Amino acid sequence: MSGQLPRTGIGVDVHAYDAEAADGPGAVLHLAGLAWPGERPLAGHSDADVAAHAAADALLSAAGIGDLGSNFGTAEPQWAGAAGTALLAEAARRVRAAGFEIGNVAVQVIGNRPRIGQRRDEAQSALSAAAGAPVTVSATTSDGLGLTGRGEGVAAVATALVVPVG
Amino acid sequence: MSGQLPRTGIGVDVHAYDAEAADGPGAVLHLAGLAWPGERPLAGHSDADVAAHAAADALLSAAGIGDLGSNFGTAEPQWAGAAGTALLAEAARRVRAAGFEIGNVAVQVIGNRPRIGQRRDEAQSALSAAAGAPVTVSATTSDGLGLTGRGEGVAAVATALVVPVG
Amino acid sequence: MSGQLPRTGIGVDVHAYDAEAADGPGAVLHLAGLAWPGERPLAGHSDADVAAHAAADALLSAAGIGDLGSNFGTAEPQWAGAAGTALLAEAARRVRAAGFEIGNVAVQVIGNRPRIGQRRDEAQSALSAAAGAPVTVSATTSDGLGLTGRGEGVAAVATALVVPVG
Repeated sequence: MSGQLPRTGIGVDVHAYDAEAADGPGAVLHLAGLAWPGERPLAGHSDADVAAHAAADALLSAAGIGDLGSNFGTAEPQWAGAAGTALLAEAARRVRAAGFEIGNVAVQVIGNRPRIGQRRDEAQSALSAAAGAPVTVSATTSDGLGLTGRGEGVAAVATALVVPVG
Repeated sequence: MSGQLPRTGIGVDVHAYDAEAADGPGAVLHLAGLAWPGERPLAGHSDADVAAHAAADALLSAAGIGDLGSNFGTAEPQWAGAAGTALLAEAARRVRAAGFEIGNVAVQVIGNRPRIGQRRDEAQSALSAAAGAPVTVSATTSDGLGLTGRGEGVAAVATALVVPVG
Repeated sequence: MSGQLPRTGIGVDVHAYDAEAADGPGAVLHLAGLAWPGERPLAGHSDADVAAHAAADALLSAAGIGDLGSNFGTAEPQWAGAAGTALLAEAARRVRAAGFEIGNVAVQVIGNRPRIGQRRDEAQSALSAAAGAPVTVSATTSDGLGLTGRGEGVAAVATALVVPVG
């Protein structure tokens, strides 16, 4: 290959369901850059969008500039409660500022619900717009096993590819 | 780099053991493209080959053309019950049809058994033949913890690299 | 792209906490290439450094030369009890001997403690020195869920990129 090698990164995120919330009228889950009305929300200081968080962590990991905690934690309180897409956009901005071009991000959601496939294009558009690069979204279940299979929460795992510029 | 950037993808799959089956004579587990006689089978509509499924999902994820559910689910009932290697081969065909060359796939099996290392070359050959590209197979345990450590099922995690053609 | 395509690899590792040990004076956890005095140790034949192990497995997986078990298991008893950084260094050496240049490794630690961010630079230096290539270290929790959320152990997930030489 000519030029510099690309770098790979990885990010996993898990959020528990909000114990005080249920699905139904008034409920809104935030996942994969979209609002899912009627779906039981996940709990968290932010919107608990595990897919956006895993994508952001994969980008930060590939670039070697820390993680969500070090970038958006207590040292930068203005990010408390920020939407997952806002965190993903800012993570992508910092990765570029650190000297990397973003190739792509791939995120897989692991959980019993919602049915991601029905809104995959919308989710991919929302996350790709945030990252300014292609973000693909897929989904699976864990066959009734583990924390996602028991319906305790939703997980996401992401990988990213970036290339040093210049 | 000249040309287009490669894209990375990711896939996780989990299947529970068949509650009505045990190891022993007559039992056959399907894993990593191989039949494992005498090993307790995993349950599923298909052969429940978590390694082949994770590999296929990683490829689809890298190419951004959905996942196993959207490609081989209820919309295409002819794939119900298909072998994992058949799903992997068809996923690879669709990834190429979507305009990508396949670089490689790496799959790690997470579970207490079987001992993958004893048949690694065979497994890598079977999955590589299905994908038409190098598929590496590794294995680990989760030290007695979690769904695989408790022996409730087997998991696999895969990453893939593809390159847009032309 | 000119030249050969890079290859991606993946590695997950999990170790349980040492049931006979607690945090406090005299305790030492080994994680991400560092000793963490006062932190409850993980159990294992080796130093149970899940981050170094996941990084090594990701490299072996990308190169297609087996895994920790096949490289450092019962067939090579001289590695029993070796430090995670020693295993990572030897895995990197074997990957290069098999004809690959190492691009990078990204490792994410999943657990309640310790606070990786406070020693991230040190951890990245230790693991990068062992691998002879950039190793980035990030961390997350699983929101109180699963084996890491319940504090039963610590997990790590890693991805690696290597390129065939010549």
